[in-house]
Amino acid sequence: MQKLTHIVLDCDPGHDDATAIMLAANNPRIVLDAVTTVAGNQTLPKTTLNACRVLQWIGRTGIPVYAGCPGPFVRDPVIAGDIHGETGLDGPVFPECTKLPEQKHAVLFLIEHLRGSEEPVTVVTTGPMTNLAMALRLAPDISSRIGRIVLMGGSVGNGNVTPAAEFNMLADPEAARICFSSGVPLVMVGLDVTRKVLCYPEIVERMRKIGSCASDLFAALMSHFCKTQKEVFGYDGGPLHDPVTVAYLTDPSVLTLKDCRIEVDTTGGPSYGRTNCDVFGYAKKKPNAKAALDIDASRFWDLIEECFRRYL
Amino acid sequence: MQKLTHIVLDCDPGHDDATAIMLAANNPRIVLDAVTTVAGNQTLPKTTLNACRVLQWIGRTGIPVYAGCPGPFVRDPVIAGDIHGETGLDGPVFPECTKLPEQKHAVLFLIEHLRGSEEPVTVVTTGPMTNLAMALRLAPDISSRIGRIVLMGGSVGNGNVTPAAEFNMLADPEAARICFSSGVPLVMVGLDVTRKVLCYPEIVERMRKIGSCASDLFAALMSHFCKTQKEVFGYDGGPLHDPVTVAYLTDPSVLTLKDCRIEVDTTGGPSYGRTNCDVFGYAKKKPNAKAALDIDASRFWDLIEECFRRYL
Amino acid sequence: MQKLTHIVLDCDPGHDDATAIMLAANNPRIVLDAVTTVAGNQTLPKTTLNACRVLQWIGRTGIPVYAGCPGPFVRDPVIAGDIHGETGLDGPVFPECTKLPEQKHAVLFLIEHLRGSEEPVTVVTTGPMTNLAMALRLAPDISSRIGRIVLMGGSVGNGNVTPAAEFNMLADPEAARICFSSGVPLVMVGLDVTRKVLCYPEIVERMRKIGSCASDLFAALMSHFCKTQKEVFGYDGGPLHDPVTVAYLTDPSVLTLKDCRIEVDTTGGPSYGRTNCDVFGYAKKKPNAKAALDIDASRFWDLIEECFRRYL
Amino acid sequence: MQKLTHIVLDCDPGHDDATAIMLAANNPRIVLDAVTTVAGNQTLPKTTLNACRVLQWIGRTGIPVYAGCPGPFVRDPVIAGDIHGETGLDGPVFPECTKLPEQKHAVLFLIEHLRGSEEPVTVVTTGPMTNLAMALRLAPDISSRIGRIVLMGGSVGNGNVTPAAEFNMLADPEAARICFSSGVPLVMVGLDVTRKVLCYPEIVERMRKIGSCASDLFAALMSHFCKTQKEVFGYDGGPLHDPVTVAYLTDPSVLTLKDCRIEVDTTGGPSYGRTNCDVFGYAKKKPNAKAALDIDASRFWDLIEECFRRYL
Repeated sequence: MQKLTHIVLDCDPGHDDATAIMLAANNPRIVLDAVTTVAGNQTLPKTTLNACRVLQWIGRTGIPVYAGCPGPFVRDPVIAGDIHGETGLDGPVFPECTKLPEQKHAVLFLIEHLRGSEEPVTVVTTGPMTNLAMALRLAPDISSRIGRIVLMGGSVGNGNVTPAAEFNMLADPEAARICFSSGVPLVMVGLDVTRKVLCYPEIVERMRKIGSCASDLFAALMSHFCKTQKEVFGYDGGPLHDPVTVAYLTDPSVLTLKDCRIEVDTTGGPSYGRTNCDVFGYAKKKPNAKAALDIDASRFWDLIEECFRRYL
Repeated sequence: MQKLTHIVLDCDPGHDDATAIMLAANNPRIVLDAVTTVAGNQTLPKTTLNACRVLQWIGRTGIPVYAGCPGPFVRDPVIAGDIHGETGLDGPVFPECTKLPEQKHAVLFLIEHLRGSEEPVTVVTTGPMTNLAMALRLAPDISSRIGRIVLMGGSVGNGNVTPAAEFNMLADPEAARICFSSGVPLVMVGLDVTRKVLCYPEIVERMRKIGSCASDLFAALMSHFCKTQKEVFGYDGGPLHDPVTVAYLTDPSVLTLKDCRIEVDTTGGPSYGRTNCDVFGYAKKKPNAKAALDIDASRFWDLIEECFRRYL
Repeated sequence: MQKLTHIVLDCDPGHDDATAIMLAANNPRIVLDAVTTVAGNQTLPKTTLNACRVLQWIGRTGIPVYAGCPGPFVRDPVIAGDIHGETGLDGPVFPECTKLPEQKHAVLFLIEHLRGSEEPVTVVTTGPMTNLAMALRLAPDISSRIGRIVLMGGSVGNGNVTPAAEFNMLADPEAARICFSSGVPLVMVGLDVTRKVLCYPEIVERMRKIGSCASDLFAALMSHFCKTQKEVFGYDGGPLHDPVTVAYLTDPSVLTLKDCRIEVDTTGGPSYGRTNCDVFGYAKKKPNAKAALDIDASRFWDLIEECFRRYL
Repeated sequence: MQKLTHIVLDCDPGHDDATAIMLAANNPRIVLDAVTTVAGNQTLPKTTLNACRVLQWIGRTGIPVYAGCPGPFVRDPVIAGDIHGETGLDGPVFPECTKLPEQKHAVLFLIEHLRGSEEPVTVVTTGPMTNLAMALRLAPDISSRIGRIVLMGGSVGNGNVTPAAEFNMLADPEAARICFSSGVPLVMVGLDVTRKVLCYPEIVERMRKIGSCASDLFAALMSHFCKTQKEVFGYDGGPLHDPVTVAYLTDPSVLTLKDCRIEVDTTGGPSYGRTNCDVFGYAKKKPNAKAALDIDASRFWDLIEECFRRYL
């Protein structure tokens, strides 16, 4: 029998983070130990409330939520775009939220949880990497307790906020640098693959038909998301970044990975926040990460559908 | 009747520069006023000798060659890779070179030539942009005398020396920055398109059959080049970067261009030399260049073949 | 009656840190709530042991010691010079240390202590500012609980490790930047004044004669320190940096201060770690600190002597 | 008999540059081969006109003036302060200027003059180092033809435009870096010494009494300068920076020098343009310059007076 993967999902919901939570909270191969939150797609109070709302909606109120850092590690805060709306989860009408976050700070929870776990825990980050970086600096010993870091962020190619940088990286480049140089095995799921899982109205309809609480929430979220994409960019849909991390953990075959050296630009110049991925080994340096180069998008959507059906 | 385009070709031959020279030196729509040289693929004495050798080989000894800068504008010199060999033009057996470069420095020639021309001159650069940057700083008035700058260098995507930077840009980022911010119309032909014109043995054979002096030289150069690509990278062929600039001038339809803001990274950090091309207009800044996004490779090779036939 | 100033002394003992502890631990105007430690003059285990040793020597074992961060916030660790020797407190022969540090991490102690205090607490740092920066990032609310930060570090003029940077600043420039931009009132006691309190053999003898436990320890420490200064630099004595912070708190008249804007260089270039103090207001920016410009050295030594006598 | 020192004075007059010209143009130990100009204290047309005006006023119209670069090497232009007024030489009423600059660009003159001289020429720069940097890059061979570079600029301590940078350095840090790393012997006369030659009304009166054309011009210039210092800074006088370079050449004993490694900050950060002078040898790197640490101010003013008397 296959071993279960314990994960902590560190996120800033956000429409795609919400989907990642749903994917992680009901998976036969994964135990979602906790959700931790960070400022990013919205302010910390909003991303924390959103994490609680999603868990309440899908009836997983037993999974604890810990609020973390309200801003980046060193740099001045970056304001996220208008993609996720005023609440960070515009679209659905949520009932009053009775699920509350825990009192403990996410960084302290991470440290205690990692130290207390019998086996290594996988940390999945789908927002700025502030919480994990702070935990690694406050308690360097935990690096040996993290099985691996699977992050949504960065890009082998170009960015989505500047030509050089992806949002989660630009929002906290120094935190990312600390994680990438921590010695912990790391899988970077960047724009190169998340841009290949475009959520169009057809996908929304396909999921809506399932009729579970999860697919209902997904449909409410993503039809609003598609509408925004249309208004802001003129596209019919957009990339569903964050759940690719969890999908990969449930079925590694969904991604094509390559070992390489990844160095985060922390200069503060025009390439600030860029993840320079040396996939061709120009610098002949030892790899510190696996970069996702390609994705089986069809398999990805099947994994999403399978998960949503499990909520029936 | 269409007007002729006067160009100065500033280069560092180099196998692909040699092909650019041959393409520019025998074209009904182009007048090649001069060839200027710079350190890059090899040292200045070698690139200058190589420019003379190519012009002598194709019987165009009337086109003057001016040697320019032996190193970059500010930074310490970068050593080019082993692609072009000890001479910079390994492959053919050249006869003794009787064609000599002019006494005048390339930068001074550029200034005088631009000031003296009745109509704007196009400056094509296929090496580090040191000479042109120095001319623009020494004689800022010439910026209004340059019709446009068409350069091989940079990349909308990734680099070929570091994950961030293309060789010509990394070799002199400060010079590139000066050219990109000069206000002169600029077309950047980067790796995004030059990597799509791969010279394989089939191409070499196709050209060899023409049997002109130009195609003979091309075949001798490129069969050596293909051999090196095989040995160094394991590929059967490699990109023919530099002639795309001249091909574009003879037939603009060969490239798909996009107006955008391009900012060269001069921080000295891990992204040093990167050309950040804001093709999606994230920063909402006024475009300062046209970036080549795609190429009609078939049309490109036809242009090369047509040119080589004109040497018969 | 004058109010007592509660302070936490965050340090990396170190000979001069040891003197600062003795000065703070027996002062009618100061309550030393705790000593927190950081890597700097030596590794964290050594600086923590040294803090315990000093408190045990002077019979102040009731003052708790909390160990903090073993390395800097973002940058790679810097190795301190050889001034403080293998133990960090070379010179005296310490008895076995029975005083133990607390279990809690210094950063967590700082946060809880600041939140729990009825009145603002002064944080004195005499090492790299890592602990305080981490506390401010983990719990931004504490900034309003800190009465002020009084730090030994930086320089209005030049550095002592590079021409630009003082050791405590170079050891963690990003942490310093966070503290300087925290909005908390800040007094920077830099090399400009600490270089004016040179501890020569005459001073050592003057204090030795007092014959208290504190002056005994001081004499043992500083005669070794003077010996090292002689061997390494050829001087008969050297600056006693850290106690100036505490001396200032006991008698503010000892320092001449100036309100100014101080910006820490975090570029990573040749001026990395420099505290640019705009004492002439060139940039017309709002001051964020008071920089110490001059010191009444005679008064300073009197304060040290008075304190040592209180240990009799 | 002592050999004469041939110098080219590269400047941006400016009140203190004007005094440097007068000092260099009538000195038994110096031959002033030419004056070259650069943008700095004012725009290039104004600094060039000012150089001509000064030479005409003192009857040295035979000394040629060459205009150089209208802006810095790489960076965007910096605007000088209001010290020198609208003309750059506010104060005296100049007669119509009949002395004209030469046609040749200062950079080309420098190259030709250095190549053509039988013995090494000293290049004195009292403005941004753009012209000399450009000459060194355009003709690297001239570095062996320059006896030494004596520059007014930089600071061992702090700056006068930012806490880190002196004006001439901040105006073109990249040019300075090129000169400092050229291998040419270099004497840096920075603010550390020029701030010790303060020109107060007493000095103006002392010189005015001499009654030569040079002292008349000096008095007219410096009484205006003192007035401005009073209005802008509240001081009765201010530093006479530039002539210290020439005074040093006429009598080296006027300065106390120290061999050291000097590195110019070209990061673009808050310390941009700082001359980091490693006078204590922290980095154990080979010296590339002599930094002026102290000046015999009394001897300096005597040298000025002696020179002004030679104009009688």
